[in-house]
Amino acid sequence: MSGQIGGDMDTTALESTITGIANHEPRNDGREVWRTELTPLSFLRRAAVVHADRTAVAYGPRRIGYSELAERVNRLASALRGTGLEKHDRVAVLAPNTPALVEAHFGVPAAGGILVAINTRLNETEVRAILDDCAPRVILVDHELEALLPRDAGRAARIITIADTGEPGDPYEVLLSEGSPGLTESWLADEEEPIAINYTSGTTGGPKGVVYTHRGAYLNALANVIELGLGPDSVFLLVVPMFHCNGWCFPWSSVAVGATQVCLRKADPALMWELIDGEGVTHANGAPTVYITLANHPHAHRLERPVVVMVAGGPPSPTLLERMRGLNFRPVHVYGLTETYGPFTRRVELPEWEELPQEEYARLLARQGQANVIADLVRVVDEEMRDVPQDGLTQGEVVMRGNLVMQGYYGRPEPTAEAFRGGWFHSGDAAVSHRDGVIELKDRKKDIIISGGENIATIEVEQAVMSHPAVLECAVVAIPDDHWGERPKAFVTLKADAEATEQEIIDHCRARIARYKCPAAVEFGELPKTSTGKVQKFVLREREWTGRKRRIN
Amino acid sequence: MSGQIGGDMDTTALESTITGIANHEPRNDGREVWRTELTPLSFLRRAAVVHADRTAVAYGPRRIGYSELAERVNRLASALRGTGLEKHDRVAVLAPNTPALVEAHFGVPAAGGILVAINTRLNETEVRAILDDCAPRVILVDHELEALLPRDAGRAARIITIADTGEPGDPYEVLLSEGSPGLTESWLADEEEPIAINYTSGTTGGPKGVVYTHRGAYLNALANVIELGLGPDSVFLLVVPMFHCNGWCFPWSSVAVGATQVCLRKADPALMWELIDGEGVTHANGAPTVYITLANHPHAHRLERPVVVMVAGGPPSPTLLERMRGLNFRPVHVYGLTETYGPFTRRVELPEWEELPQEEYARLLARQGQANVIADLVRVVDEEMRDVPQDGLTQGEVVMRGNLVMQGYYGRPEPTAEAFRGGWFHSGDAAVSHRDGVIELKDRKKDIIISGGENIATIEVEQAVMSHPAVLECAVVAIPDDHWGERPKAFVTLKADAEATEQEIIDHCRARIARYKCPAAVEFGELPKTSTGKVQKFVLREREWTGRKRRIN
Repeated sequence: MSGQIGGDMDTTALESTITGIANHEPRNDGREVWRTELTPLSFLRRAAVVHADRTAVAYGPRRIGYSELAERVNRLASALRGTGLEKHDRVAVLAPNTPALVEAHFGVPAAGGILVAINTRLNETEVRAILDDCAPRVILVDHELEALLPRDAGRAARIITIADTGEPGDPYEVLLSEGSPGLTESWLADEEEPIAINYTSGTTGGPKGVVYTHRGAYLNALANVIELGLGPDSVFLLVVPMFHCNGWCFPWSSVAVGATQVCLRKADPALMWELIDGEGVTHANGAPTVYITLANHPHAHRLERPVVVMVAGGPPSPTLLERMRGLNFRPVHVYGLTETYGPFTRRVELPEWEELPQEEYARLLARQGQANVIADLVRVVDEEMRDVPQDGLTQGEVVMRGNLVMQGYYGRPEPTAEAFRGGWFHSGDAAVSHRDGVIELKDRKKDIIISGGENIATIEVEQAVMSHPAVLECAVVAIPDDHWGERPKAFVTLKADAEATEQEIIDHCRARIARYKCPAAVEFGELPKTSTGKVQKFVLREREWTGRKRRIN
Repeated sequence: MSGQIGGDMDTTALESTITGIANHEPRNDGREVWRTELTPLSFLRRAAVVHADRTAVAYGPRRIGYSELAERVNRLASALRGTGLEKHDRVAVLAPNTPALVEAHFGVPAAGGILVAINTRLNETEVRAILDDCAPRVILVDHELEALLPRDAGRAARIITIADTGEPGDPYEVLLSEGSPGLTESWLADEEEPIAINYTSGTTGGPKGVVYTHRGAYLNALANVIELGLGPDSVFLLVVPMFHCNGWCFPWSSVAVGATQVCLRKADPALMWELIDGEGVTHANGAPTVYITLANHPHAHRLERPVVVMVAGGPPSPTLLERMRGLNFRPVHVYGLTETYGPFTRRVELPEWEELPQEEYARLLARQGQANVIADLVRVVDEEMRDVPQDGLTQGEVVMRGNLVMQGYYGRPEPTAEAFRGGWFHSGDAAVSHRDGVIELKDRKKDIIISGGENIATIEVEQAVMSHPAVLECAVVAIPDDHWGERPKAFVTLKADAEATEQEIIDHCRARIARYKCPAAVEFGELPKTSTGKVQKFVLREREWTGRKRRIN
């Protein structure tokens, strides 16, 4: 029964190398037997063995099994090393939710690099600012998005086009073919090394890169698994763009449990219905905006099995909630920021809510809840960092700390220190704390508009408006919008004798900033000011939000 | 809407202190905002808020909610500090699965101590050896187990009786009343500090204390949650004794997700059926022995809802599996050791197995699988630490590493180094590796018998037998047993002219070692020996296991 068996074994050994079964060199040289650095890369090492034959990624007719995913990731990692990549070099990806971007979530850190998934809705100027900030060694760009790359980007970085065919000849596939199918030697020495940078539109001073660590990504991936109850038989529809908090860390969550993740280039409602039915989707994520469109699409129909949907970026309205529940979607309401790897709190539903009228259920579900299974409890504090009373009335700022808070802003110690003052991350969101410890957002301290789940800094919009030659001064505030949650509105004072129409101002902005950031409306007139001449934005906001209980939507 | 509201708030502030809502001082002084030490204590801090009104512990008519559990744990921690407990002092508990022992899983580490839950089936001599080794400052002892404490134990430690009433006057309740309901200041500086010591019967040199860390306990608790799909609505029947790998870490798992854990003093089948029905049990754990008894009990009946049961300590037999599935129990087969916080591998079931004949399903389920979601992949290696071929035939030793491996044996650097040779923990279990990477146990390299899920070192049994004045020499081996898995059998050579019966030998042992360790049978005669006079145990074992495919059961 014992001893080596020759010929047959060579094959096995080869397979082992490909899938990473046998290649067990410790990643933690010099560390103890009882410690392995926490990294989402472990999820794929394991899934390649434990879930080898399950489908890891479904994309149109393509099916990538876990063995194949592991091999493709190994190839990507080794090919990236082949470009001369050094430890912690950035690799930028500009792509919709395609298999290549899932692969980059593993292949880039496996190579020792840091993944920078860039918002595909930005314009060339905005993309340039991010590339200038993170200076990637390699850029992977989807064939439809090449126009977003600055013309001189190729000077500093190697640019590889993703034709998104999965076929030989696709430049991305050529890159993979340059790599080796075996595991690349790990350079990870400490789980607190960076794994990804996610850019957020800063209120001042351009885009800020939010640094995620291997440890944080690993832990938030597990939190998602537990909060949604993901398992090997789950089919996850990856609606949140992976450039957005790495899809809230779900590309890692799915691999942790051997689930299938369904990719799609665009959250198009007809396509989503096709995938929900055809792929047997059991779980999904996304901003309410997406589900408003989905629930009101002509193809909408009640599902036999429940589909659990993690919703964030604004609570689902009573109308949406009723509609979703009617279709057998079960919304799980979470709240977080780019700075917290996406979801941080979760509103735990209670069984007794089932008995409540829909309006009341929606009102309770709309609260942001408290820390998810891995997050530290959030606090709501006053200016002196004292907890506000748990009276459901007194507003304070939501602050967070712990393993699901970013390491800092990339290369920006001062904004990091400012965000972390008092030893807590300051969300900029104003909330009340209820008697049961649950928090409920009420307002925003930062000048940010959240539209369709995306952040828009008002200062960016103001700068775009101000660059119009007829504009003397301008203030941009959020206005409520049933579909997008919020949208920007510009209040403009024109120069003496100058003229401009609302549409001219909007068109002017569209040439300068991403379309979703442009004003939905422009109103001309005097701006309200303090005696010292400072614009009183709150006066404008109050006017637009009259009759509403919250100042966010 | 803003500002302090006086009177009402004082109450809230007090409640906050009790439940730990507002007491957020960083546990990690001098560390970064983005790092919190991983510890199961965080689970209770959070559950006290998020799941405040849910039942944490159900025990007969008693119900302990999460707020109350947190308060009781805070009181225990502060009362333990009041005894003069210093950081990393041991607190021993000798108790069945009662609420007090659940509370000790949180209160002892919250005080800064290390929990030592002692096997209640040991005898006074065996308990003394453990107390001598860990030298506890405090001993909590269940009222039915006081006789197990050595008479002089009280000289070194403060002993507190658990009358297990939950009522005033119970000495344990008096201890809690001495404590403060607020959070005790944490002394935890590093997640790799010890949280518990679990004693395992060593093959040589007496009991060895297996050291668990806060980090390992936290991570294995989450692995359980994910592998079983535990959630806030789960009701977990805690069958595995908490002195056994801390109940496989389930007291921490349940609190992580706000589930209810059902305690019971004894895994009595009638009581278990009563609890399964009465409490609406959804999940449980235990050795197959327990479920053989349960499935064959007169009260056995098919359950409407499935009950998911984590089974370890020997695979379920085809007969047991068929019976369990018929009753709507869904066994999840895992494998691990005390040294791996309990469960380490999990056999992932595949949907297509449902089509298979019961025998074939059982044969496949019986394999030990591969690493659970958090464990590192296990290896099967030869003497030179080379992976054996994945041919399902070649045996090697199962070795493990990573976050779910113990830190070492308490105060025993040499056995630790021996167990960790080559940078991997050596399980002492012999297995084959199948082509799909799944491992299957075949034999045991260590002289250990596993009976009803408990380890028995043959040397301990041999020493007890040898102490009989009529015995010249003795060898103890495992024999297969349908109910217990394995049981010890003693082969004895008597001294010339001496006499002793089988029953005399067994009775002699019962006075010396725990009853479950005593020989099930004694056979008299010559022992097979090598030419140099060494006893050939394998000859005895082969004879007893003739006709079986494995040498373990």
